[in-house]
This record gives sequence, structure tokens and C-alpha cells, in this order.
Amino acid sequence: MSFRVSLAQINPTVGDLDGNAAKVLAHAARAAVLQPDVVVFPELALTGYPPEDLVLRGHFVRDAAAALARVAKDLPRGLSALVGFVEKGRLGLHNAAAFLRGGKVQGVYRKRLLPNYGVFDEKRYFTPGGKPMLLKLGGVTAAVTICEDIWTTRGPAQEAARLGAKVVLNLSASPYHAGKLTQRRRIVQDTARACKAPVAYCNMVGGQDELVFDGGSIAVDARGRALANAPQFEETVVTVDLPAPGKAAPGRPPLTPALSEPLPELEEIYAALMLGTRDYLRKNGFAKAVLGLSGGIDSSLVACLAVDALGKENVVGVTLPSRYNSPETRSDAQILAHHLGIDFKTIPIQTAVDELLDALKPAFDGRPADLTEENLQSRVRGTLLMALSNKFGWLVLTTGNKSEVSVGYSTLYGDTAGGFAPIKDIPKGLVYRLCEWRNMRARTDLIPATVFTRAPTAELRPDQTDQDSLPPYDVLDKAVTLYVEEDKGLDELVKAGIDPATAARVVKLVDGAEYKRRQAPPGVKITPKAFGRDRRMPITNKYRVTGRE
Amino acid sequence: MSFRVSLAQINPTVGDLDGNAAKVLAHAARAAVLQPDVVVFPELALTGYPPEDLVLRGHFVRDAAAALARVAKDLPRGLSALVGFVEKGRLGLHNAAAFLRGGKVQGVYRKRLLPNYGVFDEKRYFTPGGKPMLLKLGGVTAAVTICEDIWTTRGPAQEAARLGAKVVLNLSASPYHAGKLTQRRRIVQDTARACKAPVAYCNMVGGQDELVFDGGSIAVDARGRALANAPQFEETVVTVDLPAPGKAAPGRPPLTPALSEPLPELEEIYAALMLGTRDYLRKNGFAKAVLGLSGGIDSSLVACLAVDALGKENVVGVTLPSRYNSPETRSDAQILAHHLGIDFKTIPIQTAVDELLDALKPAFDGRPADLTEENLQSRVRGTLLMALSNKFGWLVLTTGNKSEVSVGYSTLYGDTAGGFAPIKDIPKGLVYRLCEWRNMRARTDLIPATVFTRAPTAELRPDQTDQDSLPPYDVLDKAVTLYVEEDKGLDELVKAGIDPATAARVVKLVDGAEYKRRQAPPGVKITPKAFGRDRRMPITNKYRVTGRE
Repeated sequence: MSFRVSLAQINPTVGDLDGNAAKVLAHAARAAVLQPDVVVFPELALTGYPPEDLVLRGHFVRDAAAALARVAKDLPRGLSALVGFVEKGRLGLHNAAAFLRGGKVQGVYRKRLLPNYGVFDEKRYFTPGGKPMLLKLGGVTAAVTICEDIWTTRGPAQEAARLGAKVVLNLSASPYHAGKLTQRRRIVQDTARACKAPVAYCNMVGGQDELVFDGGSIAVDARGRALANAPQFEETVVTVDLPAPGKAAPGRPPLTPALSEPLPELEEIYAALMLGTRDYLRKNGFAKAVLGLSGGIDSSLVACLAVDALGKENVVGVTLPSRYNSPETRSDAQILAHHLGIDFKTIPIQTAVDELLDALKPAFDGRPADLTEENLQSRVRGTLLMALSNKFGWLVLTTGNKSEVSVGYSTLYGDTAGGFAPIKDIPKGLVYRLCEWRNMRARTDLIPATVFTRAPTAELRPDQTDQDSLPPYDVLDKAVTLYVEEDKGLDELVKAGIDPATAARVVKLVDGAEYKRRQAPPGVKITPKAFGRDRRMPITNKYRVTGRE
Repeated sequence: MSFRVSLAQINPTVGDLDGNAAKVLAHAARAAVLQPDVVVFPELALTGYPPEDLVLRGHFVRDAAAALARVAKDLPRGLSALVGFVEKGRLGLHNAAAFLRGGKVQGVYRKRLLPNYGVFDEKRYFTPGGKPMLLKLGGVTAAVTICEDIWTTRGPAQEAARLGAKVVLNLSASPYHAGKLTQRRRIVQDTARACKAPVAYCNMVGGQDELVFDGGSIAVDARGRALANAPQFEETVVTVDLPAPGKAAPGRPPLTPALSEPLPELEEIYAALMLGTRDYLRKNGFAKAVLGLSGGIDSSLVACLAVDALGKENVVGVTLPSRYNSPETRSDAQILAHHLGIDFKTIPIQTAVDELLDALKPAFDGRPADLTEENLQSRVRGTLLMALSNKFGWLVLTTGNKSEVSVGYSTLYGDTAGGFAPIKDIPKGLVYRLCEWRNMRARTDLIPATVFTRAPTAELRPDQTDQDSLPPYDVLDKAVTLYVEEDKGLDELVKAGIDPATAARVVKLVDGAEYKRRQAPPGVKITPKAFGRDRRMPITNKYRVTGRE
């Protein structure tokens, strides 16, 4: 008396209709061996998620329909599958699931609840469906739902249960942030309990621009107890037998139990950064990455990530010393590169910097040195890294963290110049913790101990440290969390123990750096609210946050 | 027997609650002299439009409510006003109009149709209202509507007319593109005819990041004939008497007729670019702009625009010659600067470029010269212009046109480096036409004739012309219009007379340049579909456009 479902947690690429179709077929064939009643693929598996304005093109939607027809035709005989696709209906486009069997599209379910908040824009593209879909599969009535459909109480899943569904299936593309897995499992469990039915939930996996989908697909029984789950961050198929009324299918191959523990916090975040970085390069056709190694904690973390994501033979570290770089930081950069086993280059910048300042001298007309001269060094470094990128086809990784990105402690076209920003959503405190964790995992000081103990510095003028310009990072990170991620006002920052002047300064810096963020490369979303799709602020904005609450 | 309405076409700044409130009050006082039955302000006049994620902050919405209460209190006695604001209701936030009179908010209308396409994201923020608002003003029943509410047949305005409205009022923030005014007037006329009632339509004016609101507010009678209209691109109040049943108010001051012709195409576009550029600088606190003058047509147009928008004393032109810049182009740059009367600086780049190439030599390991060396020159120019920006607080204007932006014929962090890109939505052909128009208006060759006749060139290698790398601009512009603005497939480009190889190449170049566009500064939207808010494509995107239609 069971219902067998395969959760095909695949990693499609946005727009790669042929590749995604082939991936669906390959995973369907793999699942078919275990004779499931149905194999469930993620939401919009055929187009990738989010396809954004691609779906507004008639030719794209037609090509996607053709790809779906090919998948239906080539699916293993006798297998039932649910595949996410874009349907052009009479009322508009639908975020839909095709029920495939016997070489044909047998039916279509249209997502009913369309998220249009946070990173989601589904109301820009899709018309909501109006009806539940109940499928009779292996003698069991199963409800089809898509992602948001189960993120509400008394929603489409509950309606389907009232109409007789004994199993709830869900196709998802639910992006990662730290802690999301727990939240998502609770949603699945709540749905099971509310519907009094087992739930099989298939999530997407893979990186897409600033989003990472972490997989972690799960099946629970009617009381919400986990029956099986897929690991995070891996493409895989998990097959599970759900308890369900009806006759048991005889003679099916036995299943090996698939239950894994969630990853510990730091390992999970590190894995998300790796997958996001690897997929950005791979899906955009880059094999190798290059980055500036300053001997600081940020570039050390990005170097480790890059090596873990791409392999040491695919990472190039460059030190670009001016007269302000200390022998200590240069040595730390070199030691790290040596430990990681990556190619390491030195390109001194002082002569070129002097030459540029010389060319500017008449225009500067005797004005005293200020941030201009600091930014210029950073831009020379950006220019040199981009030259390596252009000459060898390497992608430049930037090394700015969320604390810096928030307050604009960076040089536009300088250290922000690059194709991908792996740690742009990681606050400085977390950068340290991730580096400690990475060293611990290596069971050695992969990143030299002095990198942790030295005061952070941009090394753009003599004896500079970040704390000359910024509040201590623990204070800054707290202020950024409250102001950026939680949309709190000044009063609340002060209530949380940040002194009023510091709070006002951080808020002003964050507001003033919007233009820099707008021209910065994408990076992996890790927090509940990342800069980018998640937080859409005008550049032109004269609002000054008050203390009023 | 008439209904007197003042259309206060104001230019608010997003987030500037105090400034916008003061502006509303100043214009209300100005209107009050003519004793209108009501003064109508634009949609979201108090917050500016679009306020984006600012409205997701509780403290912002509370501050905006306080600003509205102050406006209500300080409004001239006896005056009725409709002011756009954000209302926090029980069901969520509303894009709302406050009816103010007697020192208080007497009522609130909530926008019922929320646009969520093109540049609009209103469903991200707002809950639609469910009810019409009919106001008895000076004995006449008037319906209140907001923008999109009248952009549909059988919508809220028609419903209000059935319920007895004899006049339709509309508060709008309708962004500009070339040709939009005609479209907008037709909508207003259609509404009047469908409702059998006069319509008074108040549009916003001003620049906000990539949008320009062009004003052009209008009042029409029940047959759609224009009774009065406001000019485009100017902050103003227009007062008009609408024919309406009811008793006439005695002794009101007479009105001077306000009917103006729409601007001719090129003058209108030029005015939009000027306003967008001026407002971006002004609202972000910049007084002066700097740009590179190459002696080419693009930088010539941007220089003229900047001077017309900011005044010649606020524009600095810089020539940054390398060994590839001809004496002819340098001379044209200088002549233009002289004609415009702007400060003109020369900063040679060759020595710095040679120094950087020298530093890269070991890393380049004997590889032949390629695009890398060209990009490097461009990045040195970007670095130098940014140094001037940092030292003097001038905003860098970039000079790339839409044809270049489309195919990525630019250097990221080089010629794309800057704060604002005035002509990023202007195709090359239109750049020429605007320059011709500007010379004609000047009744002299403000831009030297040779700038028009010389083949366009980036001057980054010997004897280079744009046409070495790109199709002729008339072909390119046609392909870009079809592919980018109209979302056509390859077949349709070919049907339109573009040869298949060229069409395929343009499509590939456009798709491949998304990462550059994502890091480029904002610029004024002029076409029906501009890059940016209007066209949201994934960077990671393996879709390859086919010929299938």
C-alpha cells in the first residue's frame, strides 16, 4: 500500500532548452529503473528559473513548447512525469506543470499563487491558474502544486485534499538563504498535516546569477515526518515510497533509504557560495577565474572558494603592490597561493600610478591628495585584472563583502571591477567565521594566522586601517542587518545598542552607495535580503531616515 | 455652468517628503488665486514616483503620512486638493489619492488597476482598491482615478460615470517615450467619450533615474476635444473650466487659455534628454559634469546636451589622446568645446598606457595584441575621468548610444565608466539627427561638419572604423529595434531585409552583452523598450534564438 515517487532534483540552465530537455530525459531514465508512479521535476525545469523577460518573447515560448513535446515523446514508456514549463494559454502565460505519459502531454496544471515580492516577479509574467489538478497515479489520487501554492495556509493543496487528494506533489524553484531549509521543511510538514496526506516536494538545484537553488527535496508522511530527503547543492534523484491507500504495485525494486542531516551552518553557506560561483562561470562559458590577492581576509576567502569550486588549476592569484603594501600582507598572499597550489603573479602598479598622477597634475592644479589618489590605485588594479581577463578569457572575481558593499567602502571600477562577486552578501564577521571553518576543515592554517589577527586595511595610504573610516565591524554588521535586511529606522538601531551618531552615519553611507551597487557585478544571495533583486532602491532618493518610529 | 480644475504638474523628488510637501503647498497657493473647485496633483506626488522599496519601510510610510497631514493643515483655506500618496491600509499599502479640504484628509481613493509590466512593478508594493470615489465639488460630481485606472476600456472611470460622475479627474505618473504623448492624449479622449464627461488629467514632470516624466497634462471635454494642456517637461499649473452641469460659481477670476502644440519629434526627444540629465545631477547633488570629448558624434551630442541642461560653466570637456587619435578628431573636439564655451582639458594617456602594458608584459608572455590593448586605453581614460570626478565632485557623463549598448561595442569600466549615460537609449541614426537638429537650431555648425562626415571610429588601433566590427549603423539600428524593442525572432529580422548572417550576429552580440549593460550607469528612457527596468534579461542565459516562427 504505497505510492512511489521520484524527486528529480536537477540543475537546469536558464534558456538552455535543449540541454534542459536532455537533462530531464536522462534523470527520467535513471528514475524509471525503480518504477515510480511518478517522477517529479522542479518548477520551470525546462526553461530554468527565473527566465525573466525571455518568456515575453513569442519565439522563446514556442521553442520551449517544442522542447516539451520532444521530452514527452522520448520519455521512457510507461513512466509518468511532471515537468515545469511555460504554457501559453488563452489568458496569457502560465507557470505550469505538464503531466507527461505515453508520449504525450496528458494535462497541464497552472500555478495558482504567484509570488511577487522579494526576488520574485511572477505577476510580471504569469496569469494565475484557477483550478486544482488531481491525477490518478497507480491507483492513488495525487494533487499537483507548484512552489508558492503550498506557502500559505488554506491554499491550493488544502483545497485539493478536500477534493480527495491522498498525496500532494510540489514542483519548486525555491532559492537559498541561510536558514531557508528549515523554513521550507516546516512548510512541507505543515502542508502534510493540514492535508492529512504525505507531501513529496522537489526543489531545483544550481546557481542562476545572484540566486542559488539548494535542492534539499523532501518527502514527508501525513504527520509531517521525513521519509526521505535529497542532499543540498547536488543534482540527484531520490525515490521514496509514500504510505497511501490503494493496492500496492507488485514486484518493484526495493529502495535504499535516503535520509540525510542538514549541513551545519557554515558548511551550508560555504557550499552555497561554491555552487553559485561554479555555476556562474560554467553556465557563462568560463573555465578559469582570476582575482587580486591582497593578503587580507576577504580575498583569502574568495581564493579558497574559487579553488574549491573550480579546481586549483583554474584559479590565478595576482598581487598588485603599490608603495603602501606591506611586506607582511604580500607574503601572506603568496603563502596562501602556495598553500592552495594556484598560479601566482606579481604585477607592481606604482610606476603606472605615478604616471597617471603625473598626467593629472596640470588638471589637479595643486589640490591636496585625498580619496582620489586612493581610488586611482584601486582602478589601476582593476584595469590590470581586466587586462588579464581580456587576454586569457579568465573571469575576474571581486572580493568585496556585504559590510563594504553596504557602506560603499570600495572603489567603483577598481576593486568592484569583475564578473562575479562571490561574497558580496557575506558580512565581515561571517567572512572571518567562514575562513576559520575552512582552515579547520583543512586541519591546517591554509589561510595564514596573521591574516586573522592583522587589522583589516585597504593599504591605499600609509598606515591605513578600515577602522579609520568605518565603525568596528561588529557594530557595522549589526547596523547593516537592522537597516538593510530588516528595514528598521534609526530609533531601532539605537535601541539595539548602536550609538546614535554611528547609526546615523551607517544609514547615510548605505543610502549614498546605491549608485555603486547598481554598477557592481552579481554575487550569491545568502541572507534573507540581499542587495539586487531583493532590495530595489532608487539611486535618486532624498529620503533621510529619521528617528521617528 | 462650469467646473474649474487646476492641474498642478509638479516635479517632486523621490523620497524628499519635506521638499515635495513644500512644493505641493507652493503650487496649491498659486492655484488658489484662481479659485478652482479642485487642484489635482500627480500620482504619488508626495513620495515621488517610483519610490520602489522605500515604501516597504515602515518608517518611510509613517513619515509620508506625517507629511500628508502637514500639507492638509497648511493648504489654503477653502481649497480642495487631490494629492497622490502611499496609504497604509488594513490590507496592505495603497497607491492612493488623498482628498484634502478644511485642514484635513477628507477621503482616500485607492488605485484599482496596478500596472506590473514594462517599467512598472506596482503589484510588488500595492494592494488594489476596490471602490470608485465620487466627490461633490462645487456642485458637480467628480470621479477620482489614478493613472492606469483609465488605461483600459470599461474600467474604473466608466464605472464611476455609470454611478453619476460628470467629470473624471486623473492623477498620473506616466513616463515618457517618444510618441507617448499622442498615445496618452488618445487614452484621455477615449475615456471622455466613453464616460460622456470631461476629463482632467494631471501628469508628473521630471527625471527619476532612467525615467523622465514629461508632463503634458491635459483637459478635454466630453467629446474629447482639448480645452487646455500644459507644456511638456516644465513644472507648471494649468487651470481650466470644464463644461459641467450645475450652478456656476460667481465672480471667479477669468482664465487665460492654455493650449499649446506638441513639440516636434527631435525637439521633444532632446528636451527629454536635457530634463533627465539635469534632474539626475540636481537631485543627486551634482552641479557640474565632465565628459571625454573624442571629436566623434556621440560625445558631441552629449556635450551639447550637458551645456543646454546645466549651463556652459558647469561642463568640462576632456580630450585624452593616445597615439591612435588623429589630429582631425582632436581638433574637432577642441572646436566644439570652443563653440560651446566650455572648459577644455587635454590629458595625454600614451605614457600611462605604455607603462601598464609594460607591467603586464611578463604575464602576457608574448601573446599577440588583441582587444585587450584596445580596452586598456579605454580603461585608462575611464580612470582619468573618474579621478577628475573624485577630485572636483563632477559627475562623469558617458557617451555610448543605444546601438553600441545593444551589441556591447564598448569597454566595461572604460567608456562605460560614469554616473549617467544621457544617450544610452538613442540609436546611432537618431544621434546624427539630433546633432543636425541642434546645429540647425544654433543656425551654425556648433558641431563641426567633419564630425558628421567622418566614418565613426573608436580610435583604439590604427585606421580603425566602427564598421570593421559592426554592420552599417542603419542595418544595426533596424536589427536592434526588431530584436530588442519588439522581441522579434531571427525570421522576422530576415523578413525585414536584414541578411541572415548579420541578423544572427547582431542577436548573438546583444545576448552576449547583458553583463556589460548590468554594470552600466542609468540613462534616459526614450524608446518604448529601453534597457534596464524595461527589459529584464538574465545574464546567465543559454537561449539561442532560432529562425523558427
